[in-house]
Amino acid sequence: MSPVLVTRREGAVLVLSNNNVAARNALSLAFYAAVTDALRDAACDASVGAIVLTGEGGHFCSGGDLRQLAKRRDLSVQERRVRLEGLHDLIRAVRDCPKPVIAAVEGAAAGAGLSLAMACDMLVAAKDAKFTVAYVKVGLTPDGGATAFLAEFVSRQVLTELCLTGAALSGERMHALGAVNRLVESGHALSTAIELAAEISTGPQHAMSRIKTLCHQAMRNSLGDQLELEAQFMVEAMGTDESKEGIEAFLSKRSPNYTQLRQASE
Amino acid sequence: MSPVLVTRREGAVLVLSNNNVAARNALSLAFYAAVTDALRDAACDASVGAIVLTGEGGHFCSGGDLRQLAKRRDLSVQERRVRLEGLHDLIRAVRDCPKPVIAAVEGAAAGAGLSLAMACDMLVAAKDAKFTVAYVKVGLTPDGGATAFLAEFVSRQVLTELCLTGAALSGERMHALGAVNRLVESGHALSTAIELAAEISTGPQHAMSRIKTLCHQAMRNSLGDQLELEAQFMVEAMGTDESKEGIEAFLSKRSPNYTQLRQASE
Amino acid sequence: MSPVLVTRREGAVLVLSNNNVAARNALSLAFYAAVTDALRDAACDASVGAIVLTGEGGHFCSGGDLRQLAKRRDLSVQERRVRLEGLHDLIRAVRDCPKPVIAAVEGAAAGAGLSLAMACDMLVAAKDAKFTVAYVKVGLTPDGGATAFLAEFVSRQVLTELCLTGAALSGERMHALGAVNRLVESGHALSTAIELAAEISTGPQHAMSRIKTLCHQAMRNSLGDQLELEAQFMVEAMGTDESKEGIEAFLSKRSPNYTQLRQASE
Repeated sequence: MSPVLVTRREGAVLVLSNNNVAARNALSLAFYAAVTDALRDAACDASVGAIVLTGEGGHFCSGGDLRQLAKRRDLSVQERRVRLEGLHDLIRAVRDCPKPVIAAVEGAAAGAGLSLAMACDMLVAAKDAKFTVAYVKVGLTPDGGATAFLAEFVSRQVLTELCLTGAALSGERMHALGAVNRLVESGHALSTAIELAAEISTGPQHAMSRIKTLCHQAMRNSLGDQLELEAQFMVEAMGTDESKEGIEAFLSKRSPNYTQLRQASE
Repeated sequence: MSPVLVTRREGAVLVLSNNNVAARNALSLAFYAAVTDALRDAACDASVGAIVLTGEGGHFCSGGDLRQLAKRRDLSVQERRVRLEGLHDLIRAVRDCPKPVIAAVEGAAAGAGLSLAMACDMLVAAKDAKFTVAYVKVGLTPDGGATAFLAEFVSRQVLTELCLTGAALSGERMHALGAVNRLVESGHALSTAIELAAEISTGPQHAMSRIKTLCHQAMRNSLGDQLELEAQFMVEAMGTDESKEGIEAFLSKRSPNYTQLRQASE
Repeated sequence: MSPVLVTRREGAVLVLSNNNVAARNALSLAFYAAVTDALRDAACDASVGAIVLTGEGGHFCSGGDLRQLAKRRDLSVQERRVRLEGLHDLIRAVRDCPKPVIAAVEGAAAGAGLSLAMACDMLVAAKDAKFTVAYVKVGLTPDGGATAFLAEFVSRQVLTELCLTGAALSGERMHALGAVNRLVESGHALSTAIELAAEISTGPQHAMSRIKTLCHQAMRNSLGDQLELEAQFMVEAMGTDESKEGIEAFLSKRSPNYTQLRQASE
């Protein structure tokens, strides 16, 4: 039996790919656990510089499996919650992973599949990818952070329309709305995401993990709280080997080599 | 004497229309109370699926009545506050109404008229509609949530300019900024808003009221708080008649019929 | 020795200009203190209506001085923090200044220079100005509110890319993203900023200081908190000489004269 998650390495880039092709990469408890575990392992592996999350067979993820969801009505609210927390643990694992996670989206990113794509730090999408807050169509409400992540870049009026109608947004439209870092022709999302990840993977790993935290907190923190967080991280950064290398390289007009520091600390 | 508010029904859509035509639909305590009451009644009326808020005679609302406002300087701060809370109660009633409220804007939406239009869940505007944070021009400061609602989709730099200069924005510019769901030719805002409302009114009413809450909270909640709210609503939704109907319809490749559930629960 | 800060008056507009031309206006503790003091003086000077912050010699500000920053690794964390608070005190002084502060940006706005430009209430930029979250390139993390201010108008995906790659944004791109109030040809940022400042400086000074506070709070306050703040300011504004003049002028179809009130209160 093929695994729910295919993993491979491209240099310093770890690629995690949903492998439930027959169901357009619909989600399962096994998938949540596999990605969450893979992200935790990657956090401790100094050879991993960045992570790409994608799907096999032309679709990112069609969301929850409706046949499974239909059975949840027979469970208690507590039992339903345990299963839902599998998804929410994954969303938190993407956010808490110290390495940048880039979503590469072709085809459908629907329901919790949209949530998962939007939870990532950056987004590469094919022009004809199809993002849908599908829940309302089957009488459900969004989960996986869909409403939180969309609210970071669309107006409340547009957010409400997307969630009340389940209307699809193309990759092109998502790019116009500001959430797509690289918009590509159909079939090129994964290769472009790997390129972007490879470029980023040469950066200062410790500083980048702090930057990821700052970017997540910045969307909702008060200015006072964000200034405090920036100050704490900056006074720390002033003493790291990374800033020593970065500033020395800049003043000597050479390229910094952060990768050596990573290997040295292993 | 004609009423301050004209109400009519278009199928499942309730239309509420400001009827102070002689004063370009300037606001009054009587208008605040009439709309607030109408929204509370609509909340309990299962035959109402969605609400459209508009103005008679070609203008949405020109804001506060300056002749009335001028007299408020003779009142105590407490008495002024009581009157202002009439407006803020209305804003809260729009937000708390479990049914979607769509603003249909032609002509002026100025001062608290802009606030009221932006408080709605969705916005249909004529290209030449005119949105103005007018307060500064007469030495006043914004109310009715104007600054809160504009901050949901413009930069602080643009928000500050709009509020410090009172510069007008066309419907076309508001659309480019991302706050208008349907941009229409002059004279077509109401009919388009009713179409959009009618489309939405066939959806799952309970799920849609939860979605409206999620969309409001999403703009400011922390990710952790929003994931918690999404989780609570989703585990509930998994047990509703709406999701039973929705999922069954999807799996049998037929259209869901949520309207029957609404009538059954009356 | 030339001062770190050049100040001059253009009518009611105070112009503050970074004068470290040899180092592309790199920052220093002396500069932080000089601007913070100038803003505090301007707050008490009724003849100042608005402030423009800019840089001499074609660059807004290239950020921290790397030769100075390199030495901070030899300081304790506490000593580093004291120096960093010089910058953060300046950022807070820009925000807390009751007069509008407009940034006029030509050339580089890099690192803490970008933070300082974005902290201002409005932004005038040359098309070819160059905004960069430069920190990551030398192994550091952003400070001065860079992440807070960018998060007010870009998606988290774009914020993350800017902070992880240090990629430059042109003035033109910043305008498309929504953060630039006036986009001008190279060499015209200062004159345009002074024009905008002069226009604003004729407004109602007390109401404008309240509006500035509302605009800052609006980006993160809950709707409830923002309605409360708007209500408090509005009931106060209804009793001011400014609203008396503004409403009387409007009803008599003449232009309001707020400047006389300012002089009277001196």
